[in-house]
Amino acid sequence: MNKTKKIKNYLAIILMSAVLESDVSAQESNEAVENQVRALLAQMTLEEKVGQMTQIDFSVISVADGQDAENPIDPAKLEEALMQYHVGSILNAPSTPNNKAQPIGKWRRLTQQIRDAAARTRLKIPVIYGIDAIHGATYTQNAVLFPQAISMAATFNPELSFREGEITAREVKASGLDWNFAPVMDIGRQPLWPRLWETYGEDVHLASAMGSAYIRGHQGDDIAAADKAPTCLKHYVGYSYPLNGKDRTPAWIGERALREWFLPPFEAGVLAGAPTVMVNSAEVDGVPGHANRHYLNDILRGEMGFDGFTVSDWEDIIRLYSRDKLADSPREAIKIAVMAGVDMSMVPFDYSFYYLLLDLAQSGEVPLARIDEAVARILRVKYRSGLFERREPALPEAGYFATAEAAAVNRQAAREAIVLAKNDHRLLPLSKRASVLVTGPAANLLSVMNGGWTITWQGNKEEFYPQDKPTLLDAIRQKTEGNVTYVGGKQFSDEINIEQAVSEARRHDIVVLALGEKTYTETEGNIDSLQLDPVQLQLARAIFHTGKPVVLVTFGGRPRIITEIANQAQAVVLGFLPGMEGGAAMADILFGDVNPSGKLPISYPRDSNDITPYDHKPIEAYESNQYRPLYPFGHGLSYTTFETNGLRLAQPAIKTGENLQLSVNVKNTGNLAGKETVMVYLHDVAASVTRPVKQLKAFKKVELQPGEQRTLEFELTPRDLSFIGLEMKRVLEPGEFIVTVGSETASFHVLN
Amino acid sequence: MNKTKKIKNYLAIILMSAVLESDVSAQESNEAVENQVRALLAQMTLEEKVGQMTQIDFSVISVADGQDAENPIDPAKLEEALMQYHVGSILNAPSTPNNKAQPIGKWRRLTQQIRDAAARTRLKIPVIYGIDAIHGATYTQNAVLFPQAISMAATFNPELSFREGEITAREVKASGLDWNFAPVMDIGRQPLWPRLWETYGEDVHLASAMGSAYIRGHQGDDIAAADKAPTCLKHYVGYSYPLNGKDRTPAWIGERALREWFLPPFEAGVLAGAPTVMVNSAEVDGVPGHANRHYLNDILRGEMGFDGFTVSDWEDIIRLYSRDKLADSPREAIKIAVMAGVDMSMVPFDYSFYYLLLDLAQSGEVPLARIDEAVARILRVKYRSGLFERREPALPEAGYFATAEAAAVNRQAAREAIVLAKNDHRLLPLSKRASVLVTGPAANLLSVMNGGWTITWQGNKEEFYPQDKPTLLDAIRQKTEGNVTYVGGKQFSDEINIEQAVSEARRHDIVVLALGEKTYTETEGNIDSLQLDPVQLQLARAIFHTGKPVVLVTFGGRPRIITEIANQAQAVVLGFLPGMEGGAAMADILFGDVNPSGKLPISYPRDSNDITPYDHKPIEAYESNQYRPLYPFGHGLSYTTFETNGLRLAQPAIKTGENLQLSVNVKNTGNLAGKETVMVYLHDVAASVTRPVKQLKAFKKVELQPGEQRTLEFELTPRDLSFIGLEMKRVLEPGEFIVTVGSETASFHVLN
Repeated sequence: MNKTKKIKNYLAIILMSAVLESDVSAQESNEAVENQVRALLAQMTLEEKVGQMTQIDFSVISVADGQDAENPIDPAKLEEALMQYHVGSILNAPSTPNNKAQPIGKWRRLTQQIRDAAARTRLKIPVIYGIDAIHGATYTQNAVLFPQAISMAATFNPELSFREGEITAREVKASGLDWNFAPVMDIGRQPLWPRLWETYGEDVHLASAMGSAYIRGHQGDDIAAADKAPTCLKHYVGYSYPLNGKDRTPAWIGERALREWFLPPFEAGVLAGAPTVMVNSAEVDGVPGHANRHYLNDILRGEMGFDGFTVSDWEDIIRLYSRDKLADSPREAIKIAVMAGVDMSMVPFDYSFYYLLLDLAQSGEVPLARIDEAVARILRVKYRSGLFERREPALPEAGYFATAEAAAVNRQAAREAIVLAKNDHRLLPLSKRASVLVTGPAANLLSVMNGGWTITWQGNKEEFYPQDKPTLLDAIRQKTEGNVTYVGGKQFSDEINIEQAVSEARRHDIVVLALGEKTYTETEGNIDSLQLDPVQLQLARAIFHTGKPVVLVTFGGRPRIITEIANQAQAVVLGFLPGMEGGAAMADILFGDVNPSGKLPISYPRDSNDITPYDHKPIEAYESNQYRPLYPFGHGLSYTTFETNGLRLAQPAIKTGENLQLSVNVKNTGNLAGKETVMVYLHDVAASVTRPVKQLKAFKKVELQPGEQRTLEFELTPRDLSFIGLEMKRVLEPGEFIVTVGSETASFHVLN
Repeated sequence: MNKTKKIKNYLAIILMSAVLESDVSAQESNEAVENQVRALLAQMTLEEKVGQMTQIDFSVISVADGQDAENPIDPAKLEEALMQYHVGSILNAPSTPNNKAQPIGKWRRLTQQIRDAAARTRLKIPVIYGIDAIHGATYTQNAVLFPQAISMAATFNPELSFREGEITAREVKASGLDWNFAPVMDIGRQPLWPRLWETYGEDVHLASAMGSAYIRGHQGDDIAAADKAPTCLKHYVGYSYPLNGKDRTPAWIGERALREWFLPPFEAGVLAGAPTVMVNSAEVDGVPGHANRHYLNDILRGEMGFDGFTVSDWEDIIRLYSRDKLADSPREAIKIAVMAGVDMSMVPFDYSFYYLLLDLAQSGEVPLARIDEAVARILRVKYRSGLFERREPALPEAGYFATAEAAAVNRQAAREAIVLAKNDHRLLPLSKRASVLVTGPAANLLSVMNGGWTITWQGNKEEFYPQDKPTLLDAIRQKTEGNVTYVGGKQFSDEINIEQAVSEARRHDIVVLALGEKTYTETEGNIDSLQLDPVQLQLARAIFHTGKPVVLVTFGGRPRIITEIANQAQAVVLGFLPGMEGGAAMADILFGDVNPSGKLPISYPRDSNDITPYDHKPIEAYESNQYRPLYPFGHGLSYTTFETNGLRLAQPAIKTGENLQLSVNVKNTGNLAGKETVMVYLHDVAASVTRPVKQLKAFKKVELQPGEQRTLEFELTPRDLSFIGLEMKRVLEPGEFIVTVGSETASFHVLN
């Protein structure tokens, strides 16, 4: 390429910071754990080792569905699982009857039965019980259920993500559970994907910051602490970018794009200390995640230095045979996955993995060294998490579960997650004396605000949601003294009487029109079009026809196309999935008790095939091509106004390897206190591969009183200036860079 | 991976067939050309060499627009181009006034002026004049303009593609032109892309077969023949798969997918003898096509053995600087492109390339050896094409241009290109005495049937289309004795009086509703949604409301979403872009003078985000995932019925490296003669990377009389059984394969 810039490989420098963080006491503790692992491994039979690698669903140790809801464990099956098959892990929740969320007391009893059984085994190796506590302790009744990740990202507030991690770990541990299958570190650049909302959005820096904060809150400095628990990075890697938008379908990601957009959040998660990684259920460039040795071994272990264990996703090893036809037998599928680097199999319904892997190991087709490696990784995490030290739930229930303080954090998260996208003529906030028609299928449901993995897998059992949490309608009724009328149903699919809605609209000052998506996750949420369903469009058109001012409120996991409606509504408030306090938080904002501060963590498409992320290439904004979503990444209004000014770089030029300090003033120029997120974007002016028009490299969220101004300091590191070069390695090329904050730009040079 | 199948690399065996084709006399002729190239190169100055690599637009040698329409060449500018800058190539057409299609006599005169000027240069090196004759001699008035590639692919008839190539070459040569920027060998798997219709669709085998046949027709056994001309493979490689569907935007294609879907049509084109290749205007995985040495050198030259020259696309070298920011100056951009392997620059508006490359060569930054290499490749093609041997147009006009025979071939192509997608209750063919309302924006335009690159770049100057060619409306009027009424305009955007259309519909037996897209190409055809525009939907809904039987006819380059309309229409006929005889051909089919035989070369999506090709992976048809387009790849009805039976494989097992013969019977079980395409699909049951559920490997189109049965023979080669393995090389793995023809399947084994 031979540019005037000289290419250097700064990978080593950039990664070195991670190594420096580990201190002496951590090293000592690591050595102690390694000694324990070695000693235990030496005592284990091959059967016990293979059992450690086996994870089964709760149903495998359970009585038949509905047979004994209070005592769902079948003691004989539990004994079989632990004595005969030596299983290392159990996951998921009882599902009787359909309500998977169990009272916390029951969870404590169930997990105690398992702990007790494990304590009776020859080597007393504890079971690690895993649960999808993706926005709080999903499957424990009355747990604090936070905004989903897409909404947490909209807060642009890592402190809230840290607190979510803290509270979730506490509630998981108070439930007697050990291990949380969160956070999702997949980057969310495919809006059709029915798990978009489980991601922190389209930006690498934001996702890395929010996910790392979550992990640090969840794990603390010592995962063995009673109120801390191990996290699991999902779903390594490339799962989030299915070409056709359907869940569990192929991605085509070149290695450069993978390293630029998809790997960094996982790198951040590993640096933050996540000790487990769950594998991509689908495939990238023809190779299923569970067979991808390059990703699982060369990159995850070799490059990132990950020393925890990897776990398959649901049934995914056997699917290398049954679905992907990568193997011609289930046995071959297991061999492929284990040799590719999968350490634990989420089997989950039988002991086939145990039998077949045992046979593969006995025949030498899977070397014992590979078995020992996997088991050592699993034991390492069990020791580090303090599982060997405990014979009962790590925490009491009282004071650690569903506390008022946790609910307040949750409500604050929901408030900061909500994005005010449009507010013509300052229609919002509404007067508490206004008469309001509330209508639309999203107005009176908790499920539309919580999404999947809430009480049940699909999150769609509204009848099991806590009765004391307000829907948007409930919250509006609680908030206002004005006349509130509701036209709608109690199910998302309930037909709304449009004539009635129109006639009521005419009788009120304002219409709050709540539209969106019903809850879903995974393949059940697949769609063939991003368009909003036509019934909701019809309702909206009829309402607009009345000429009444309309506040459009949306809930749901994906940016469904609302352009026509948003163009006509005076105000648009995007709720995404704000969680169990979403109704209250939305009412706080609609009526001005809270000044909105959420910012979009994704580009909101204008039309169903208008899918371009903000950090696109110059060629995507050239000639007839444009980045012109309905709302851009980072968009979000406030009831006050902010101004950024005085962008100042500490130096006009830095040497390669140096950091660059910069500062900028942010001022509240309105009449109301509020929070503003100041975002620092970087553009590399010329490089040996094409570079995005801009990339978020830093942000800070600050609260400012009316008229208050603060100066914010930022620092750009060599890593921030680097990218994946022609040789697929991270490089930093000298030359010009442009920093943009708000409407101000400044440029600097990196010298050779 | 260590499967029971043992992996072998059959790349060598598979490619060997190409080498064997070259015979002794071809070798002698090659040697003669190489000697001529060497001798001429030895006489050239550096300036003359750099000039050879320079391609300019016609406007550079032209008088000001509109100044002298009859004699648009400015002799001084022409002299400057050839004497001072030694330009090697000129492209494009005069554009006065807006009508780029010139009378053939004028083309002959213009190109004669250029030939004469070249003959006066020191070394008398002929200019090679290139033109986008993508569906016939686009820019020569009254040329035979064929169905566009997507429609040619729908014929499933390589013989027609061969004839198109023959006729196009003849008309290009009769126009005095030298070189055709066709065929497009990009694979068409992104239906949003505004150049989808320039491709032969989503399937590798079909595209390779159609494109190769075109090249063989266009070039014959000897490109130097008077009626033959060199082709150009476009746009190497990955251009056709923009992530967001917009033209000239990034693709993310892993190397395995690239080799499996995108490279094979180019390999086929190189084997068929195409001597030039045009470069991808966009980028793949962060590297612009014009900077991709890996693709342009390692793969195209090293692996495919291509020995012709590569030409940039329009202005694309300078855009490495101005758009992609890959370089920090235009000079650097030229260096990057030339060193990556671009041999000729379509500059096209100035001599900047000449000056800057000269400077780069003089300073040694671009080695002289690289200049010599590029020039030798260009001269090689000029010698092979016989340009040095001619001082006047290679062919006379009479007998070689717009012949009745050529028009008949064109009409046959259009007839076979049209796809009958639905025909409930045998509504079609229509009686010639039926009274018909014709309506819809596509009913009375030639442009909607021809698409871009017709008379003008965008193909949208209806006023310059030949007056003697019938639109669909004209053709229906010519065909029938019944009462034909038309409600509509003469522009695509003309508002149609829906009330009038409805009242006329009630007065007629049948409604022919012609919908679609107006013509476009490149970025001007970008769309944000595959949905049909709402105005057309409104018209359709109003018509359906009358209850009259509706024949939906569609024209346009992309599969716009018609699901709602197609569900209500009794008959659906997909025209795509059937070319200048499209109206006549469509009327032939609607009224039963021709039995339709077109088959879909793409999957027709059900909704705007429902984009899955037929040769998807098993994971895309697992659990909730399905391949369920509105119409699948290969779909197409007839007015008769066909049955395939008796699928028979010659052996139950073959050894690696052997061919497999198979046969199947096809029978016309109806009462009408007709053509049927019999397709042979293959599925590799288990492999070391995931394999498509099925892939087309062979097809034959046969005409059968009522009751007639024929036995068709096919042969599957090792290449057909191979795929791109874990090591990115073509491999053939022993094991089970399943052949599907129609509803019959048979399996065989490849032994080690």
